Amino acid sequence: MRTLKLLISFDGTGYCGWQKQENGPTIQAEIERAVSKICNTPTIVHGAGRTDAGVHALGMTAHFHTSSRVDCESFSKGLNSLLPPAIRIIEASDEKSSFHARFGALAKTYYYQIYTGPVICPTRRLYNCHVPFRLCCSTMHRCLKTLLGTHDFSSFETAGSRDKDNTGGRGAVRTIFKAELSEPEPEFIRLTYTGDGFLRHMVRNISGTIIEAGRGKTTAHEFAQILEARDRNRAGATAPPAGLTLLTVHYRKDW
Amino acid sequence: MRTLKLLISFDGTGYCGWQKQENGPTIQAEIERAVSKICNTPTIVHGAGRTDAGVHALGMTAHFHTSSRVDCESFSKGLNSLLPPAIRIIEASDEKSSFHARFGALAKTYYYQIYTGPVICPTRRLYNCHVPFRLCCSTMHRCLKTLLGTHDFSSFETAGSRDKDNTGGRGAVRTIFKAELSEPEPEFIRLTYTGDGFLRHMVRNISGTIIEAGRGKTTAHEFAQILEARDRNRAGATAPPAGLTLLTVHYRKDW
Repeated sequence: MRTLKLLISFDGTGYCGWQKQENGPTIQAEIERAVSKICNTPTIVHGAGRTDAGVHALGMTAHFHTSSRVDCESFSKGLNSLLPPAIRIIEASDEKSSFHARFGALAKTYYYQIYTGPVICPTRRLYNCHVPFRLCCSTMHRCLKTLLGTHDFSSFETAGSRDKDNTGGRGAVRTIFKAELSEPEPEFIRLTYTGDGFLRHMVRNISGTIIEAGRGKTTAHEFAQILEARDRNRAGATAPPAGLTLLTVHYRKDW
Repeated sequence: MRTLKLLISFDGTGYCGWQKQENGPTIQAEIERAVSKICNTPTIVHGAGRTDAGVHALGMTAHFHTSSRVDCESFSKGLNSLLPPAIRIIEASDEKSSFHARFGALAKTYYYQIYTGPVICPTRRLYNCHVPFRLCCSTMHRCLKTLLGTHDFSSFETAGSRDKDNTGGRGAVRTIFKAELSEPEPEFIRLTYTGDGFLRHMVRNISGTIIEAGRGKTTAHEFAQILEARDRNRAGATAPPAGLTLLTVHYRKDW
């Protein structure tokens, strides 16, 4: 049996997130259908983690086992011919049999994009959160810095099934390696986060609270107190899914 | 009666273009419905020109006459509250009664966006043409230069109703003021055109032929011969609508 890794990019608009479910179309279901067709047998595709409905990915990863002898490039092209245009296989590659997209992931990088102009250009609306207010980037930057390091992120966790991972038993404790703000264009703000794991809605809850700080509703000091409080009721609103993109899943090879 | 000008941005995905028709949803129909509601009377909205199904706009313009006393900012906000998120009014402004969005337009600027990487990121797919080949920008640049000035563009006109305009009787003769190539990001090519008018599918026919030149199928010299031939059969394929965006309609004020 071979172990194949997929590098996947998708537009999450109109999908109920990554994970298979009865309620509607999901990325995992689409990819499993295509992989099963090429492998000529029902095949389970394991993703690096879940994504919420409407969240996008440039570099999601997944793996599956197969006895198919199809070479990687043909696999990738074949899958793209079967998948809808909203889902693209960037690359398929052979991995060691021990590779696991989820348990082998050391870290993930997400970005959250915000447009602050008065009217959002419709061609950007599906990939940005529209906040039609001038935001104080300096306050937002100070909030981001307080996230660095290892913390209990209970204040930014939405109740619900907790993602099980390979460092089980750590509760809501996660380590953030990078939390940065950039302005790629005027009126566009991008918050980038790299961490060893993220709780349910964690990036969206942090981003929603940081947006409120940017509007002057919370100071950076209060933001730090919210983090320390370990109390979801203290934090701000969950920022909408469209602004969120999973950029990279990091493995030992590239970490 | 007041004359109001609208500056409009739209995501043309899923629309049958600007002009009202029976076959499906159009931008004009959506805007007329919203304007008529705010004006409390059926109101015709005149656009600066047609756009094809699937073509986008950052700066389309239109005008209408109304006896409504609603101020411009409230008009703009009210329209946006009624319009779908794919259509946004950037600005509404009072104009002289002689203003006409179409007959007053001196020029238009369009850009055509091409992605040349092997797999297009799904979040870009609706706003770019995917050409998974290395293109020769220098050849494309030379083709663009041959377009500058006044020419008969019959070779790049798709048969069908010719846009009537305020310089009637000029046939397929148009003047191109600007035709440029830029690479805003690696593997992204943007062709920008400014002209006093464009024939049906003209930008897409020119762009499709220039893409073929970029692939080495046509030389810049042959491209010039195609333009001179005034024969549609000589030119290349019509490039897909998703890559095309109407950037600006130029009036005397800003020209």
